[in-house]
Amino acid sequence: MAGSDANETAYKAAFMWRRQQDRGGPNVEFTQEEMDSAMNNKLAPGQQEYSIMSFRTAFHGRLFGSLSTTRSKPIHKLDIPAFDWPQATFPQLKYPLEAHAEENAAAEKKALEEVEHLIKTYHIPPCAVIVEPIQSEGGDNHASANFFKGLREITKKHNVLMIVDEVQTGVGATGKFWAHEHWDLPSPPDMVTFSKKAQTAGYYFGNPELRPNKPYRQFNTWMGDPARALLFRSIVQEIEKHDLVNRTAKVGDYLYGKIEALAKKYPGQFENLRGKGMGTFIAFDNPRRDEFLKRAKAFGINIGGSGQSAIRLRPMLIFEESHADILLEALEGIVTSWDKDLSKVGKAKAVPGEGTAKP
Amino acid sequence: MAGSDANETAYKAAFMWRRQQDRGGPNVEFTQEEMDSAMNNKLAPGQQEYSIMSFRTAFHGRLFGSLSTTRSKPIHKLDIPAFDWPQATFPQLKYPLEAHAEENAAAEKKALEEVEHLIKTYHIPPCAVIVEPIQSEGGDNHASANFFKGLREITKKHNVLMIVDEVQTGVGATGKFWAHEHWDLPSPPDMVTFSKKAQTAGYYFGNPELRPNKPYRQFNTWMGDPARALLFRSIVQEIEKHDLVNRTAKVGDYLYGKIEALAKKYPGQFENLRGKGMGTFIAFDNPRRDEFLKRAKAFGINIGGSGQSAIRLRPMLIFEESHADILLEALEGIVTSWDKDLSKVGKAKAVPGEGTAKP
Repeated sequence: MAGSDANETAYKAAFMWRRQQDRGGPNVEFTQEEMDSAMNNKLAPGQQEYSIMSFRTAFHGRLFGSLSTTRSKPIHKLDIPAFDWPQATFPQLKYPLEAHAEENAAAEKKALEEVEHLIKTYHIPPCAVIVEPIQSEGGDNHASANFFKGLREITKKHNVLMIVDEVQTGVGATGKFWAHEHWDLPSPPDMVTFSKKAQTAGYYFGNPELRPNKPYRQFNTWMGDPARALLFRSIVQEIEKHDLVNRTAKVGDYLYGKIEALAKKYPGQFENLRGKGMGTFIAFDNPRRDEFLKRAKAFGINIGGSGQSAIRLRPMLIFEESHADILLEALEGIVTSWDKDLSKVGKAKAVPGEGTAKP
Repeated sequence: MAGSDANETAYKAAFMWRRQQDRGGPNVEFTQEEMDSAMNNKLAPGQQEYSIMSFRTAFHGRLFGSLSTTRSKPIHKLDIPAFDWPQATFPQLKYPLEAHAEENAAAEKKALEEVEHLIKTYHIPPCAVIVEPIQSEGGDNHASANFFKGLREITKKHNVLMIVDEVQTGVGATGKFWAHEHWDLPSPPDMVTFSKKAQTAGYYFGNPELRPNKPYRQFNTWMGDPARALLFRSIVQEIEKHDLVNRTAKVGDYLYGKIEALAKKYPGQFENLRGKGMGTFIAFDNPRRDEFLKRAKAFGINIGGSGQSAIRLRPMLIFEESHADILLEALEGIVTSWDKDLSKVGKAKAVPGEGTAKP
């Protein structure tokens, strides 16, 4: 299953948890009115309607519940019915971070104030907030550990769950097994969702109150799929055996430093470089992004884009410094070949029409 | 991925298709207003809202869109926000069919009239109707080929798509590869969804108008997952090599005949026997259903329940007459052992608390 499934089961757990509180605990039986209303897709009289809050430019999946929290691009959402759920602004940091520390802190403070305002005033109050450690599909948008600590405090204060969507960031790429380990939160996220590298989909949680109070409230044909669980275990074992998370942290630092040097050498070509200390989860902007990605193929490397102008690096966990050097050579080749015919640059023949960014 | 994913992607295709008609075709660009509205989970001014219609006691999955069309049991739906989509009554046939031909035909006619009425009057008009060939989770509820032909005619007439959910019925168990082959429809369903036996999830369609007009409108990490496609191909090859669909039809007829004989021998124990001519997709009701399923385990067989009182058979495609005989012996053993202590019947020790029906 996919990240969409992971997030939606987490949302279901959040709704069940909040309604259970309203009801007075896990042992209070559903009323006949509640059951009849549910069968008609309605709330029972007196039942509070809840929502899931997400952030602008977030991506949490493409099914009907997850798509209601996805705010990346119109093409993902057009024509598909959505729930009337709230979105808060994700802080838009300026780079380099050192040069914009005050401005960025203010942007994060303002974003948190908006979150709290929406929690207190939105006409369908959120029972959970979902957030990506790094907004991936939305353009590799980062926020500081302080921002996420603030988010944890606000959600705790208002009895709202904090769901961390680690579908892209989870399983090592940021130099920690889970990206939220970078934040040193005062208390853990309520739920952490995963898929992709895990070869399966789901969420983990620590609070026993999040366990559904009856069987079959969360259920699925492949639930607990043993073949996928074995695959994930093998992946984890392989990661541990080869110390791949720490190695990714190290090679990420190496790669970041080298791109930083390229950015100085070629002004305007590697803008808003981000992902320092976040393993190989590195991105930068280029004003000719789509052409950049096309040219990358001519140099024999396959990179993707995200958001409006980001070029995002997502090497596998076995990526080493020697691979980084190949990539770096290609990156330099791309930005020094703009005036050359695409068919005459790089190592491979370019395939026209391919290599464009994911819209 | 799962049946929920299969159905939701089909719903998405349905919404895109209908809005594309409203817009004037696949080459009409989205307006800025449409794109802005979509990003806010809203309809653009003047845009028509659409729904997906399903049937009472239907089961189409547990994610937010599919759950909005699932109408099986409150436990599946309680506390989870749902779209305000319409449901029509699924005809409730009486058994044996021969003895209630007129009454059943009237029930199906009435159900179709309700479908047409809802299509014409529901405040959020449906752009698609989804139906299971046999309502599985809902209790193995059958309808005649005539009913489905009528549904095809009504949906065609009103420009509504007909989606057939073959997540449970697909891939051979009914004695045809797809259960809807039993109906001899005047024109094929618009979309057929599948998962489970296919080891993957998706839908197939014939009408090119159902193809999204832009890339990335339907997309997913595992889309076209080659490993799963190879698995499904191998399954299809194995089915063809061993002629498993035809053999399932034959062994189903054998099994049905034998249970029919048991029903005569033990009145009240195998009520509303259904699935004649539908391969091994056979079910019956028993007034002590949950106890029946528990006792079945004591006889060494694992059967499931569905709906309020159904015992449903779902043997694998390699089920042969010799296996049917073992099952039949157990079935007879169960219904002649009601007065015996559970620990003293059958071949295996009963495990108290296990073997209850899926709620």
